Amino acid sequence: MNQDPDVARVDSLLDAATRAADVLAGTTPGERAAWLEDVADALDEAADRLVSLADEETHLGPGRLAGELKRTTFQLRLFASVVRTGEFLEATIDHADDQWGMGPRPDLRRMLRPLGPVAVFAASNFPFAFSVAGGDTASALAAGSPVILKAHSGHPRLSVATSEIVIETLSKAAAPAGIFASVAGHEAGRMLVTDPRTKAASFTGSLAAGRALFDLAVGRPTPIPFYGELGSVNPAFVTRSAASARAEAIASGFAASMSLGVGQFCTKPGVLFVPAESPIVGLVVAAAAQLGSAPMLNMRIADGFEHSLADLEAHPDVEMLVRGKTADGGAAPSIGRTSMATLLADADRLTEERFGPAALLVEYDDEADLLAAADAFSGQLTATVHGSDRDAIAPQLLELLAQRAGRVLWNGWPTGVSVTYAMQHGGPYPAATSSQTTSVGTAAISRFLRPVSYQSVPEALLPPALLDANPWAIPQRVDGVLRLPARTG
Amino acid sequence: MNQDPDVARVDSLLDAATRAADVLAGTTPGERAAWLEDVADALDEAADRLVSLADEETHLGPGRLAGELKRTTFQLRLFASVVRTGEFLEATIDHADDQWGMGPRPDLRRMLRPLGPVAVFAASNFPFAFSVAGGDTASALAAGSPVILKAHSGHPRLSVATSEIVIETLSKAAAPAGIFASVAGHEAGRMLVTDPRTKAASFTGSLAAGRALFDLAVGRPTPIPFYGELGSVNPAFVTRSAASARAEAIASGFAASMSLGVGQFCTKPGVLFVPAESPIVGLVVAAAAQLGSAPMLNMRIADGFEHSLADLEAHPDVEMLVRGKTADGGAAPSIGRTSMATLLADADRLTEERFGPAALLVEYDDEADLLAAADAFSGQLTATVHGSDRDAIAPQLLELLAQRAGRVLWNGWPTGVSVTYAMQHGGPYPAATSSQTTSVGTAAISRFLRPVSYQSVPEALLPPALLDANPWAIPQRVDGVLRLPARTG
Repeated sequence: MNQDPDVARVDSLLDAATRAADVLAGTTPGERAAWLEDVADALDEAADRLVSLADEETHLGPGRLAGELKRTTFQLRLFASVVRTGEFLEATIDHADDQWGMGPRPDLRRMLRPLGPVAVFAASNFPFAFSVAGGDTASALAAGSPVILKAHSGHPRLSVATSEIVIETLSKAAAPAGIFASVAGHEAGRMLVTDPRTKAASFTGSLAAGRALFDLAVGRPTPIPFYGELGSVNPAFVTRSAASARAEAIASGFAASMSLGVGQFCTKPGVLFVPAESPIVGLVVAAAAQLGSAPMLNMRIADGFEHSLADLEAHPDVEMLVRGKTADGGAAPSIGRTSMATLLADADRLTEERFGPAALLVEYDDEADLLAAADAFSGQLTATVHGSDRDAIAPQLLELLAQRAGRVLWNGWPTGVSVTYAMQHGGPYPAATSSQTTSVGTAAISRFLRPVSYQSVPEALLPPALLDANPWAIPQRVDGVLRLPARTG
Repeated sequence: MNQDPDVARVDSLLDAATRAADVLAGTTPGERAAWLEDVADALDEAADRLVSLADEETHLGPGRLAGELKRTTFQLRLFASVVRTGEFLEATIDHADDQWGMGPRPDLRRMLRPLGPVAVFAASNFPFAFSVAGGDTASALAAGSPVILKAHSGHPRLSVATSEIVIETLSKAAAPAGIFASVAGHEAGRMLVTDPRTKAASFTGSLAAGRALFDLAVGRPTPIPFYGELGSVNPAFVTRSAASARAEAIASGFAASMSLGVGQFCTKPGVLFVPAESPIVGLVVAAAAQLGSAPMLNMRIADGFEHSLADLEAHPDVEMLVRGKTADGGAAPSIGRTSMATLLADADRLTEERFGPAALLVEYDDEADLLAAADAFSGQLTATVHGSDRDAIAPQLLELLAQRAGRVLWNGWPTGVSVTYAMQHGGPYPAATSSQTTSVGTAAISRFLRPVSYQSVPEALLPPALLDANPWAIPQRVDGVLRLPARTG
């Protein structure tokens, strides 16, 4: 039997991470911000080597991979800037008040503190942005929580190379030993999720694997938060007016988005609703048929895609308009067509995620049926409307989709997730196991923090963030009123 | 077999709550704030009747109960004031930016939206503040999430009376039908937690019952957040200097806090560490022995307390200094004594919560052992230090306790939880199943909200909170910078 080589290391890594957590709790946001920037610089310096390694292992192409690395180091620096503001601490000071409405209140001061060691499971499809030094690692380190990274088997050498850079850089910067480590192998990952020293876990991947890890995390004697992103079909709805006004742009945009990265994005739009007899169908078919086969991430994913495609093809009421070849680990786009009635009758099967370049076009006669269709979807990362703001159906359709998705888009496409303050990447289950947080964007830092109140603790013993003198110059809510520090520079 | 009468109502109540959720998503914070204030006013008007009913059913005494009702209506009004500021929406606007560091970004706007129908399980020991119109109901309604309240069997008539007032008041105020309902019975509660229409649940009660409901909530095909508060022993640590300086005040304060409400507070201090041969032991014994028996909430709780007391008494290395009588549903304070060595050797058993007026005094010889003792506790709602800020041990002890508790106190007692902006009531498991939220204080509103991003959505279709014109005059983070509205009045 194959024994993961890292199984023997998990215990000592968790010990080191636990000791690091104690040290990290006493570090300043500024120190942690500098570490993140150092890591970003070191990754940028090694860009050529890393991108070439990534391309060998993932076949995603040097252009896309260089862009993804740029996004990843940008993300590290954005978290650094956010950490420096100290807003994420949510520092709140209530002075003692004898006149407080429910009776005298003591001095109470609340802030967010790091959660402790975090297990981060890397994804296959973003070997930089959702892997070793990706979003969850950045936000956990920003929060002050040590990271043990479970590397993805899809890019093992890249994972080792990236981990070495992260570890060496943090060590040079005199960050606490044990703040970051990486392991490989299924069993090492299982051990991380079930060990009492692990205080949270995050994961991006399949519904089956993610739910199994979620069940482990919440089934522990001491359950932990599990941030899983498990799949999404990202429906897009084209109203009649949009189909009339912009058929070509919609068709070419959709074909490009569904086939981007060989359809291996969690935000790939997998279902498109169009008016019956719209030219969009023919245009999508023409665009998709022109796209050749491209290698998928690995054979396992290619096999899985072929299976899910066969399932779609086998559906008695789905017509395959384009059946792309899947061979030798590669795939070309496939497009199916069905009717609104079929989709509504068999929504569970037809709204399943098919990870790869496949999409289903659903033709409707009555635009009002789009509301019933929106209602048929479970939790989604994204949902898109192509319409005109004069469409009578638009307000209700957007509202229904906002109830089911983490991000709703208008006249755009969901692939290409920007890292910003306002990004939400997550959504109701199964898009995510925790719809209340995000894995992309600066709000992600809250995943790895926990509030603590200090009651009547004297100044000498309070954390700096909670002092009246506000030595870190951070936002503080004082007696209910949010106060921003004076801007400098 | 006893069939819960409310089982047959659950389905239609959840349907009504789901419809109400749709309506609520379109209400303004100001509308919801007014409803909360109306409910507070109506409860205050009915205070005499409600307090008298509560006293009949819980034996907590009219003084305490009147105070608790005051706290409850204060809480409703405080949430109203917080909702009006709109801060809880976390409105964030990123304008489209071609120069964004990782590549051009689209217009992205993020806000928190209500989660949907919530099941709130009332607690036995706070028939107002953690019951029908208590904290979770207030924060869920403030957030815009409908509530189905599972009444506690310990105060059935009070629950019905309070529910009637809430329902009638909300109806008069033209709040959506189905925004609030209450049910009774174990099976109705189980149905609420497992029904797909329920989007979150909250609970305060025993570890066994809470864990069982947590397991149901996370074991669903679509798991939901479960906010359980399951128990805490709330250790208190007296340093040598504090014991010398303030033995009498510490002893009387402790005896009062551990026996308050017949020891039936989740924040009751159940373990007190004192220097060996400190006069505190004798003073606590004298104070506790003077306190007579008082009726507990109900016979089931009294029986449970007797069992947990017998377990403490049976411990070979625990000496019972005061053994209060437990008879006829009443209990008098009991005080045990043990050594630091015994506590460290048998921490699991000796740090268990005993719900009622019992406490364990632990004598130490070496003050440094307090650190090992702090380390022996699992997650706690609170942890307390009585010391001097010149105590060498104080910084490390407070830090260890902050890692294990939701609230750390200095020279005070944990009972009497103030409802403020900076309160944190919760903590690592088993104090709470979700250490990242609070059940008391204004921060609780985040439990029942979920973020959604709107990408490139035109003004006419955006929620008011996300408009550049900021019609609600709420704080908005615009392109990374938090902007507060100009103050009025």
